Amino acid sequence: MLLCDIGNSSYHFLDEQEEYKQNISSFDPASIKERVYYISVNASLHAKLQSLPNWIDLSNYIDRDKYYKTMGIDRIFAVESIANGVVIDAGSAVTVDVVKNNKFIGGFIYPGIQAMQKTYENISPALAYSFNFECDFDIMPKNSQDAISYGYLKTLYCEVIAHKLPIILTGGDALEFKKIFPDAKIDTALIFHTMKKIIQQNEDILC
Amino acid sequence: MLLCDIGNSSYHFLDEQEEYKQNISSFDPASIKERVYYISVNASLHAKLQSLPNWIDLSNYIDRDKYYKTMGIDRIFAVESIANGVVIDAGSAVTVDVVKNNKFIGGFIYPGIQAMQKTYENISPALAYSFNFECDFDIMPKNSQDAISYGYLKTLYCEVIAHKLPIILTGGDALEFKKIFPDAKIDTALIFHTMKKIIQQNEDILC
Repeated sequence: MLLCDIGNSSYHFLDEQEEYKQNISSFDPASIKERVYYISVNASLHAKLQSLPNWIDLSNYIDRDKYYKTMGIDRIFAVESIANGVVIDAGSAVTVDVVKNNKFIGGFIYPGIQAMQKTYENISPALAYSFNFECDFDIMPKNSQDAISYGYLKTLYCEVIAHKLPIILTGGDALEFKKIFPDAKIDTALIFHTMKKIIQQNEDILC
Repeated sequence: MLLCDIGNSSYHFLDEQEEYKQNISSFDPASIKERVYYISVNASLHAKLQSLPNWIDLSNYIDRDKYYKTMGIDRIFAVESIANGVVIDAGSAVTVDVVKNNKFIGGFIYPGIQAMQKTYENISPALAYSFNFECDFDIMPKNSQDAISYGYLKTLYCEVIAHKLPIILTGGDALEFKKIFPDAKIDTALIFHTMKKIIQQNEDILC
């Protein structure tokens, strides 16, 4: 069974146990002949994917009334896979969603690492640093690299831990954020768990 | 007495009681014939300003050893004007500096409103919203505008109030941030207070 989570920059596949990615700009979805179950937040691919009969969109199998209208389908699928916790999906954006007793409480969107580094760099060339994920949050920074690292990471940290819930990290930069949330669980396949559940629940229609 | 605080986008003047701004790209500092006391974070103007004998750079009259090497002179001057508090200078960047008993404890740098709005917009056109400064921080967001507003503002708020110190707002966007820090004091002339103090203290050399 081939599953695919399509973002703004890549196709993220799960082929049985193996995860791999393909670039949005270079990969042609028509090159795959077998059946692919997918979700996509990439509006520019919508028509193309809809025209391919072996690409099955799973987004319609979720009760979307539990969520808000413009909420990304990737966030919804990630949230659907857990019962209690803060889900941090760290990709080009960092989405932070709170789930309590299987209920979506709400969530917020923070810029991803690359986007935020570019932001600081654009404000001033003097701020063109990589973030220091080992930055000590107990000490107010006294150098430029820590000043932007603390600005990006401590503010997020402060808000996330205030929810006092288990933290689940997913997305391409999950490992980086594990450095500031050492107790968090990493699960890069959250979205795939929900996809599999939906396929099982709708076996008669989908398989 | 004419004072000027030069940033990356504008010249901020104080002429006795009147504050006004001039654009970096269109204003020619040589057009002013009277004496101007200034500080500048704008490296591209350094040579030009040094060549004008009536523009007096006040940055050398501060004990810089109390601060870190790459810390912007505008932040240093703002911090020098208070004894206890969190100074939030909201401009193209938002700098947040902590002062306790006249001692600089440290500080961090966060993107300014415009820069951060651009960041979200670049991540996805679906996030091209203005920030909602009336966003309720007690409720997790359930719409895209609040999801980015909370991401930008609540994270900052959470970190700033944790210091449990008086908050002083300065910079061009001070009024916007007053909405999320209602108890903060606005003082757009923090830097000018320090400039005046230095001129007084060094009257024999500078006047």
